[in-house]
Amino acid sequence: MSGYGATFATMQALGLLPMKAENPAYVRAEQGSGKGTKLVVVGAGVAGLCTAYEAKKLGYEVTLLEAGNRPGGRVWSGRNGDVVEFEDGTKQTIEWTKGLYQNMGAGRLPSIHGTTLGYVRQFNIPMEIEVNTSRSTFLQNDHINGGKPYAQRKVINDSRGHVSELLSKAVAGGGFDQEFSTDDKKRLMDFLSYYGPLDKAGKYKGSDRADLKQYPGAGPQDMIVNEDTIPLDTILKANFLGYEMYEEAWDWQATMFQPKGGMDAIPYAFAKALGPVLHLNSPVTAIAKTGKGVTVTYLKEGKETHITADYCVSAMPLTILRKIKVDLDPAHQDAVTKASYRGSYKIAWEGPRFWEKDFNIYGGLSFLSQGPSPLWYPSADIFSDRGILVAGYQDESIDRFQTMTLPQMFARSRGSVERLHPGHGDKLEKPIFVGWKRMKWYEGSWIGAQPAAEYDVMNQPDGPIYFAGDAMSHVVGWQEGAFLSGIRALQMINDKVKSA
Amino acid sequence: MSGYGATFATMQALGLLPMKAENPAYVRAEQGSGKGTKLVVVGAGVAGLCTAYEAKKLGYEVTLLEAGNRPGGRVWSGRNGDVVEFEDGTKQTIEWTKGLYQNMGAGRLPSIHGTTLGYVRQFNIPMEIEVNTSRSTFLQNDHINGGKPYAQRKVINDSRGHVSELLSKAVAGGGFDQEFSTDDKKRLMDFLSYYGPLDKAGKYKGSDRADLKQYPGAGPQDMIVNEDTIPLDTILKANFLGYEMYEEAWDWQATMFQPKGGMDAIPYAFAKALGPVLHLNSPVTAIAKTGKGVTVTYLKEGKETHITADYCVSAMPLTILRKIKVDLDPAHQDAVTKASYRGSYKIAWEGPRFWEKDFNIYGGLSFLSQGPSPLWYPSADIFSDRGILVAGYQDESIDRFQTMTLPQMFARSRGSVERLHPGHGDKLEKPIFVGWKRMKWYEGSWIGAQPAAEYDVMNQPDGPIYFAGDAMSHVVGWQEGAFLSGIRALQMINDKVKSA
Repeated sequence: MSGYGATFATMQALGLLPMKAENPAYVRAEQGSGKGTKLVVVGAGVAGLCTAYEAKKLGYEVTLLEAGNRPGGRVWSGRNGDVVEFEDGTKQTIEWTKGLYQNMGAGRLPSIHGTTLGYVRQFNIPMEIEVNTSRSTFLQNDHINGGKPYAQRKVINDSRGHVSELLSKAVAGGGFDQEFSTDDKKRLMDFLSYYGPLDKAGKYKGSDRADLKQYPGAGPQDMIVNEDTIPLDTILKANFLGYEMYEEAWDWQATMFQPKGGMDAIPYAFAKALGPVLHLNSPVTAIAKTGKGVTVTYLKEGKETHITADYCVSAMPLTILRKIKVDLDPAHQDAVTKASYRGSYKIAWEGPRFWEKDFNIYGGLSFLSQGPSPLWYPSADIFSDRGILVAGYQDESIDRFQTMTLPQMFARSRGSVERLHPGHGDKLEKPIFVGWKRMKWYEGSWIGAQPAAEYDVMNQPDGPIYFAGDAMSHVVGWQEGAFLSGIRALQMINDKVKSA
Repeated sequence: MSGYGATFATMQALGLLPMKAENPAYVRAEQGSGKGTKLVVVGAGVAGLCTAYEAKKLGYEVTLLEAGNRPGGRVWSGRNGDVVEFEDGTKQTIEWTKGLYQNMGAGRLPSIHGTTLGYVRQFNIPMEIEVNTSRSTFLQNDHINGGKPYAQRKVINDSRGHVSELLSKAVAGGGFDQEFSTDDKKRLMDFLSYYGPLDKAGKYKGSDRADLKQYPGAGPQDMIVNEDTIPLDTILKANFLGYEMYEEAWDWQATMFQPKGGMDAIPYAFAKALGPVLHLNSPVTAIAKTGKGVTVTYLKEGKETHITADYCVSAMPLTILRKIKVDLDPAHQDAVTKASYRGSYKIAWEGPRFWEKDFNIYGGLSFLSQGPSPLWYPSADIFSDRGILVAGYQDESIDRFQTMTLPQMFARSRGSVERLHPGHGDKLEKPIFVGWKRMKWYEGSWIGAQPAAEYDVMNQPDGPIYFAGDAMSHVVGWQEGAFLSGIRALQMINDKVKSA
């Protein structure tokens, strides 16, 4: 931890500062401190874009080289005409109706990712709410309830109801007489009675939070609660808990956001600010240490081109870095070689918004215990006619996609939709499969479990070569981690330049 | 319950139909069945607008009379230049920056209000998400934690943690050995361990869901959970539970919506469709039964004007109806006289969005246990510079506003902001107080508790006079109730016309 960070954390521990994650991280440096220093950044994902952008602001002479034909890396929104290209040459062209899109990589921003939101503010990127939790979404398990899905509201509220009933029973039965006073017991019982909610006998018999048999209406039509709750035994066997608690993960809690029109508004804002610093279609083939710095070799219109610099920041996925000829010391070489990336995918379909009109589902995620899961409903353009539905967003290995053809994967994905929305699966069309482990220039969704020693090595420079990307952070799989790692790499370089 | 409704409910009870609240209610009638029948609707709140709109579609000769200068009633969005007029003559003019607005009455739509959303679809009203739950919002009580607010994420997750720990202890201590098998106990313990979450010793020691001492970052900066949880004893005494469970109320659950640019987009869409049927600035002074129908007297440019019709639907608040000379039978007269309306208010301020930038709060509500509460943060135009913040939205009686001047109320409201956002209260300006009990033409926010007999009377016609409005529904205080009551009133009229 840096000195600043340590002091900050100590002050927080003492209660002197509120926990304000919205404070963006910045490079602490004097204006113009990069003047006369040459820097090459490799990879125009958000880590590379941010590194180059901050370096340019400090006066560095920066070149940002990107192998592909667009900035953003895994922060990419697919639209009509876009081509998805796998490393093995497989190509898919997106044919969705114009105006529709899907964030095929990064898809949401939490309100506590302060550095990311700091850039959103700097670039004035128009934002909207991303719905990560909707009580109308489903939880489903083939072996539970005859395979029929439950609404999330029922699972979550029935779970709390049963837990409250059991604890109420234990308290009433004298189980806590030793530790609680009569007053405390009374308060706890009152709490559980509302928390459950429980009836006067301490029983949980459903509630309007969980399920209604009849909605209240005009005239005589009053609310009727469905007292037929999911039995505790079923909840325990259904293995839904991970889905129930999903909304409480610290970086998935409401409120979440998305840029209007697609997540790639963020990288495109950086690209615009960088102007000619960014070179697309410029795959790097080698990074050599020169003693005074680095020589980076890349292909420019197919021709080998060399560029020398004082420092290089590799912001490529380690899966790509290891395919390039780079002068790495043994420790870095070892960590790069061993890095194991995950193979998360998304399958996205165009269709009419039956999930809104027929199922009250506006954004949020439905989870299945088998087959492609979850279904992720669009938060953009709610109430419009058509939308892009994600049916399957997890690691390929879970669905054994490695053994399947694209049509087989699509059939499985449609099957998941049909399980939750019977009779509607056939309305979906133009599926696109983006398996990040197969994607050209990426070959991985994010880094998997890694020994701490390898993580620590990659977070230190190898001579003039520094490493950035979410893999060099404890915020793996998020833009926040990529930004913070880019800022950290540049901070290390700048501190070195200053002390030189 | 109507025949159709009964069959539908039975089918649902048998599990034959999913609970689909999105099905809009419609008047069941043949095309043109209103031809040759004259109808006067009094009051152009959403109940009156909907009644007139549906009647017009069926061929009725409809007149809709509205006392005020705009349609929508309590569905009203305040904007620059609008005048808030109380019954006692007090006037406030809204001076907020152009483009800013606040929904001073109805402010959110749940995704299960199918009839309301049916109209949203019919009229193609552009919608956006209304954030009703944000984990970064606050819960505060002057007598707890030295008056300092807790983030909602901490209260909610610490509550669950303590409950889980206690139940886990009871199970481990043998409290449920009689009723659970060893396998079931194991499953329940595993469930609680994740639900809490609990450590291996079954203790709740905070979690990343509740509170972090340090956010994870790049390089060595890893996450540090704050193990300093809110003691159970404090949670029980803080009286926060109503606020914690707020998001689970059936009609406050995510996903919720608001029309882009203001809730009054809904009434204005009806008004546009009604065209010359709607007469503004036309206060009704009398409704007389004629034997063949009704004569309605109203003021047109200050002059008494009479209109005869076969039927009249009174869609006024009962507080206004009872000030008018109406031929009501004793039962209706009694129910109208006794109707007791609530005095909910909103105080709204313009200010820079410090709640977003400095507190990570984007939409949602913070609750205080004393003083004007809650703070309701805008969901519209997040990340923009300025916004309208509601500080106080509850019944006037709770804050004893009856005894205060406007400046005193505003000082109290600002005080609530300062309690939650110290140092920021002074940034707010141009406050507006809309106390619905004082509002000209309304004199109430919604109906309070009412004996069932009086409710039943008002839901039956008095000769040719029918009653509509959310007060004639079990969905009080919601547009859904108003729409359903209007549709029901027209259904009764149409059934009578048909049988005549």
